[in-house]
Amino acid sequence: MLLTNIGELTTNVASPLDPCGTLHDAAVLVEGGRIAWVGPAADAPTAGEVVDAGGRAVIPGFVDSHSHLVFGGDRAAEFEARMAGQKYAAGGIRSTVAATRAASDEELRARLRGFVDELLAQGTTTVEIKSGYGLSVADEERLVRLAAEVTPEVTFLGAHVVPAEYADDPEAYVDLVCGEMLDACAPHSRWIDAFCETGAFTVAQSRRILEAGIAAGLVPRLHASQLGPGEGVRLAVELGAASVDHGTYLTDADVAALAGSDTVLTLLPGVEFSTRQPYPDARRLIDAGVTVALACDTNPGSSFTSSMAFCIAVAVRDMGMTPAEALWAATAGGARALRRDDVGVIAPGARADLVLLTAPTRIHLAYRPGVPLVDRVWKDGVAVR
Amino acid sequence: MLLTNIGELTTNVASPLDPCGTLHDAAVLVEGGRIAWVGPAADAPTAGEVVDAGGRAVIPGFVDSHSHLVFGGDRAAEFEARMAGQKYAAGGIRSTVAATRAASDEELRARLRGFVDELLAQGTTTVEIKSGYGLSVADEERLVRLAAEVTPEVTFLGAHVVPAEYADDPEAYVDLVCGEMLDACAPHSRWIDAFCETGAFTVAQSRRILEAGIAAGLVPRLHASQLGPGEGVRLAVELGAASVDHGTYLTDADVAALAGSDTVLTLLPGVEFSTRQPYPDARRLIDAGVTVALACDTNPGSSFTSSMAFCIAVAVRDMGMTPAEALWAATAGGARALRRDDVGVIAPGARADLVLLTAPTRIHLAYRPGVPLVDRVWKDGVAVR
Repeated sequence: MLLTNIGELTTNVASPLDPCGTLHDAAVLVEGGRIAWVGPAADAPTAGEVVDAGGRAVIPGFVDSHSHLVFGGDRAAEFEARMAGQKYAAGGIRSTVAATRAASDEELRARLRGFVDELLAQGTTTVEIKSGYGLSVADEERLVRLAAEVTPEVTFLGAHVVPAEYADDPEAYVDLVCGEMLDACAPHSRWIDAFCETGAFTVAQSRRILEAGIAAGLVPRLHASQLGPGEGVRLAVELGAASVDHGTYLTDADVAALAGSDTVLTLLPGVEFSTRQPYPDARRLIDAGVTVALACDTNPGSSFTSSMAFCIAVAVRDMGMTPAEALWAATAGGARALRRDDVGVIAPGARADLVLLTAPTRIHLAYRPGVPLVDRVWKDGVAVR
Repeated sequence: MLLTNIGELTTNVASPLDPCGTLHDAAVLVEGGRIAWVGPAADAPTAGEVVDAGGRAVIPGFVDSHSHLVFGGDRAAEFEARMAGQKYAAGGIRSTVAATRAASDEELRARLRGFVDELLAQGTTTVEIKSGYGLSVADEERLVRLAAEVTPEVTFLGAHVVPAEYADDPEAYVDLVCGEMLDACAPHSRWIDAFCETGAFTVAQSRRILEAGIAAGLVPRLHASQLGPGEGVRLAVELGAASVDHGTYLTDADVAALAGSDTVLTLLPGVEFSTRQPYPDARRLIDAGVTVALACDTNPGSSFTSSMAFCIAVAVRDMGMTPAEALWAATAGGARALRRDDVGVIAPGARADLVLLTAPTRIHLAYRPGVPLVDRVWKDGVAVR
């Protein structure tokens, strides 16, 4: 398949002046689900199927490196109460735990597949999915098992919050997470994660959990500094985490640690939007040399958006990113946060995950907030929208 | 057609405790493009065609009472520069004037129809469209003529900004607007409007223009207090305007004048989002008894969104509206701002403009920002999506 007459192609093959590797009047050749050739439309090879982009923009499929898509129920009433003035707290997670435990595998699977379709329709072709609404050995195991049916990027997040039944003995819950629960979940997972925050897990507990995960062959990532400053970011860097996520409250020491590391800082604008927290300053991070990713954090409590375009718009308006930086963060940045080099880029050998926009330029993703601008989507070279 | 098994139906037939007139387990019967019956699904009459809403939410089609959909070009580069720190000013309108004048009728018509389709796909079944990118007699006439092809809610806004050729003599331009231009445009228009703001038109000029429009049989509405406080709101109330739009900077006297009038205050969250201005406080307005509408103000300069759902999400997060108030403002409020009683409401006799959401409740419009939640749309009883 040859996708040609592309007015603006974002390849993310960086040059010194353009991290987005932008081409105009370009074409992309797809063979066997992979990118075979990228270049000027005038030089394009012939192909059996030709798709005319009509001069519009083409971008890599979004890489959403942080989501929680396996759960039961929703928390619309909690959202409504929060918008009327109630504060967000991590404890609300427990109500979704109850609804998730009560749901059957079939119910959770149908819901999950609905979300995956919703993401594809919005241009997200790679998604990471966390467990964390089971919080028992059997329930966490089924969440990672269900997630593994739809993505290789499965994260075991038994340490999402301490479940009610362990409220009096959180250390015993950490023992469970690091022991029997990890044993059950590791075979279905690539990543180990913890929610390092007041009201969830301490830095010492988070360290135990990530180290246990590493020992079981998983790669660490960490939720940190969402609700206040803490030592989580430095812990993540020390342990070589692929990403530390949230970073709403970062100290200068956190920023310096990130800048000197391979750990990505994943910003989640939907969370600040939906909890009315202050927005973190992406400009400060980028200017300091930190690699920044954007993700949706789709979950029923703090951020129920699944729109990467919406997150880009908010990141541009409220976090100080340029439209180009925000798109890079939502594609190549997400790929870095998942340590993937086969997605988030349009280059020979990469997966043919492509999005054709109903717009002449990627700027429109921020310039036209809320408007569905995703016209066509290919995943592994197959048209899915 | 019977639309049944509606989990949550927002009728906007107000009761003292519920301005949204919410019904559960409801059904709506459509006959001849109008609503024929509304009530409990269990009591629904029989019908030839039955559509099962699957327990999801149904709302009235959005009534977008403020847009500028007839123009050439876009201003993506200006948006990008503004996001990098450049301030928004009304003068940018002139670049769109140049692009609009350069476009053919066919080009403008194709663009306009594309926008109307985009709006319908997002659930907007009634839209007001302003001229204002022509600013010559011939160009303003063709803009209102083209707009009248797609909506009865056409607004003559020759007084959008003083065109460059009248920069040295704005009064002469006001004479033209009130004379030959009004004569040419009034036959295609229902409304007269002006942009009463520093950098655009003074209060005295705005008064002349609205009074000339009223004398020509048009009904007034006014852009005011977008960029700073002024006397525009009180002028609009004095002249019995259907709506005064923007209201980013309102004095207590403005609020009191609005509360004691039939003039709606139309808030445009997309503008504050896309220009990084402070958000007006809808809570203050509603608590004072002002009727509030929400509209997109779709235009290439200050707000290129066309998503009423996005505006609802921002109004809830940043303007202090509840999800129910925001939906009311985007439907019944818009209808009030257009002095229409046949839209914005689901009641016998009203137009059958209906939206079926991919969500169990209207709360999701704010709870899931950016996510396309509009599943099916009927306008005058005809399925358009």
